[in-house]
Amino acid sequence: EQKFNPVDHPHRRYNPLTGQYILVSPHRAKRPWQGADETPELAEDKTYDSECFLCPTNTRVSGDKNPDYADTYVFNNDHAALTQDTPDAPESGNPLFRCESARGLSRVICFSPDHSKTLPELPVGMIRKVIDTWNDQIEELGEKYVWVQAFENKGSAMGCSQPHPHGQIWANSFLPNEIARKDENLRAYYQQQGSNLLVDYAKAEMADGSRTVVETEHWIAVVPYWAAWPFETMLMPKTHVRRMNDLTDEQRDDLAVAIKKLTSRYDNLFKCSFPYSMGWHYAPFFKDGDTSTDHWQLHALFYPPLLRSATVRKFMVGYEMLAESQRDLTAEQAADKLCALSDVHYREMTT
Amino acid sequence: EQKFNPVDHPHRRYNPLTGQYILVSPHRAKRPWQGADETPELAEDKTYDSECFLCPTNTRVSGDKNPDYADTYVFNNDHAALTQDTPDAPESGNPLFRCESARGLSRVICFSPDHSKTLPELPVGMIRKVIDTWNDQIEELGEKYVWVQAFENKGSAMGCSQPHPHGQIWANSFLPNEIARKDENLRAYYQQQGSNLLVDYAKAEMADGSRTVVETEHWIAVVPYWAAWPFETMLMPKTHVRRMNDLTDEQRDDLAVAIKKLTSRYDNLFKCSFPYSMGWHYAPFFKDGDTSTDHWQLHALFYPPLLRSATVRKFMVGYEMLAESQRDLTAEQAADKLCALSDVHYREMTT
Ligand SMILES: O=P(O)(O)O[C@H]1O[C@H](CO)[C@@H](O)[C@H](O)[C@H]1O
Ligand SMILES: O=P(O)(O)O[C@H]1O[C@H](CO)[C@@H](O)[C@H](O)[C@H]1O
Repeated sequence: EQKFNPVDHPHRRYNPLTGQYILVSPHRAKRPWQGADETPELAEDKTYDSECFLCPTNTRVSGDKNPDYADTYVFNNDHAALTQDTPDAPESGNPLFRCESARGLSRVICFSPDHSKTLPELPVGMIRKVIDTWNDQIEELGEKYVWVQAFENKGSAMGCSQPHPHGQIWANSFLPNEIARKDENLRAYYQQQGSNLLVDYAKAEMADGSRTVVETEHWIAVVPYWAAWPFETMLMPKTHVRRMNDLTDEQRDDLAVAIKKLTSRYDNLFKCSFPYSMGWHYAPFFKDGDTSTDHWQLHALFYPPLLRSATVRKFMVGYEMLAESQRDLTAEQAADKLCALSDVHYREMTT
Repeated sequence: EQKFNPVDHPHRRYNPLTGQYILVSPHRAKRPWQGADETPELAEDKTYDSECFLCPTNTRVSGDKNPDYADTYVFNNDHAALTQDTPDAPESGNPLFRCESARGLSRVICFSPDHSKTLPELPVGMIRKVIDTWNDQIEELGEKYVWVQAFENKGSAMGCSQPHPHGQIWANSFLPNEIARKDENLRAYYQQQGSNLLVDYAKAEMADGSRTVVETEHWIAVVPYWAAWPFETMLMPKTHVRRMNDLTDEQRDDLAVAIKKLTSRYDNLFKCSFPYSMGWHYAPFFKDGDTSTDHWQLHALFYPPLLRSATVRKFMVGYEMLAESQRDLTAEQAADKLCALSDVHYREMTT
């Protein structure tokens, strides 16, 4: 009788953060492709673009003029998905037609004045400024809002409508689905096991090594055991850290190094400006003061769409939307591919 | 003080089938767009393509030759995501590294010999053949598998790698995430309310009318109150029907009419071959014989990606992946747009 082997045999892996499964079909990467090709993303070549809404000194649609900024620059999104003063929605009483009002705001963070430099090509000192800006924004908005989502959509394959390197911050008067679900799962594990799920997980991955993509003194990035996207990664501190604000200066500097190495490996994979959505999860700002957040751990998630090359992406469609996420290579295979590459960006290599 | 108005004010709607919320930002549809443009999908113009793997009499990659089929044609996928004889995976015992073996198979259904005719352009009698083929496949595979997902990915925007109109059937030895979650939510409602959630919902929508897109004698298609995709719809029978197999002949003929009208409205919206993923949900084939399925109702889900035109799609990225699905127009606004169009396909109109 045949023995089960995760590299040959379809299987499902459980994501303890979402409570959902992922179908892994490792034998499937060989099928032919007649579908859509993406345009390969290349970094912009101009450091300044007079047509860009985000470059220093340019005027935005709103009529506001950007200052001649030197590192990061934050402004309120002129087309926010949320408003700060939404009136309360009336209760419907019908369980099939439930609606609640939503308050919040949304800001844009330009990562640097340079139109052409995405995170992997920024100097470590500039990435550190981005980290500090994320933290300042999260702490400021967390005073009022229970959730503050910091994220970056990179590349047009990820719906990014502005090539100038930037991220976004959306503050919410509510706990969004993904955070509410994660809060529940992390809390249940903490109650059952008496320890923090993601701290335990980081330890297990450090001991194992087969899914590790980047390891620095204080940080580890892995393709999670339960990854859904082909080259998905999770970046975690090695010790218990509830929020970015709890990081020491040294841990922040080291985070800048880890981000540069991880995103450089990404760009090196298909020699392109690797598209992704990334963002931070951490202990929500519960307003009742009583709710413990011992079960929470700061971590960043990277969800890149590419599968086989700079132009062929994974589509999460059909079966995935209606039934279950499915991937064509194991997490370990993806980690191997990323590990085989240099952690120095291909455009910064001196030969 | 301002009164809450769902057309102006951001709010969250609750999806009772998934237990998740959708953030609705109806004021946001006006922002400028500099992001990716899709290539508009147009129907293929040749009725036969000698290069197509799915056209009658052609040879596939596997070396198999397609018969000269007259209506639908089903064959086993040469690159299935699942295998029928996967050996069992050993238990890991660690709650962070849970894995189980997955068995199943995957088939392709060619909808008709005509390379150029997608569902809206097929005659009603041919759509009826597709319905019967779905049902035959589901019943046959349901004898062995607990779940059989019938679906169609249409258009390269939805990762479709073959332009010849076709769908897929994936049979699973397990209950996939989305079905397991729906089973739980439908069952809880049945226990609490003593009635079937989707039967109640269809009645409420028939009475209301503001989200109805197509109504025939036996079927209703609505933009669900909790829709996530801009022009998402749900197609339901008006009475309690657990599975396709329970439909009468008359209900099946009428379903063909409803599908033709719904997909014609879709194509008419942006005058293109409207991309989507669609599929069927219904009572799973529980193997213990004891599990009641009274809480289940047959329904089809259509998830189309387009937002503003044949070339501008909604990206479910960044905030959506990390926090919560978000839409830029209300379900009622989307239904209004679809209702304003003819239910006769623009290429079949006689002027
Ligand atoms: O099987 P196909 O059509 O080649 O592939 C398509 O549908 C599958 C099922 O939804 C997805 O897993 C693939 O990502 C998608 O490209
Ligand atoms: O705000 P942007 O960059 O214009 O828009 C992009 O990110 C948003 C947040 O993830 C998404 O809702 C949009 O669909 C996407 O196009």
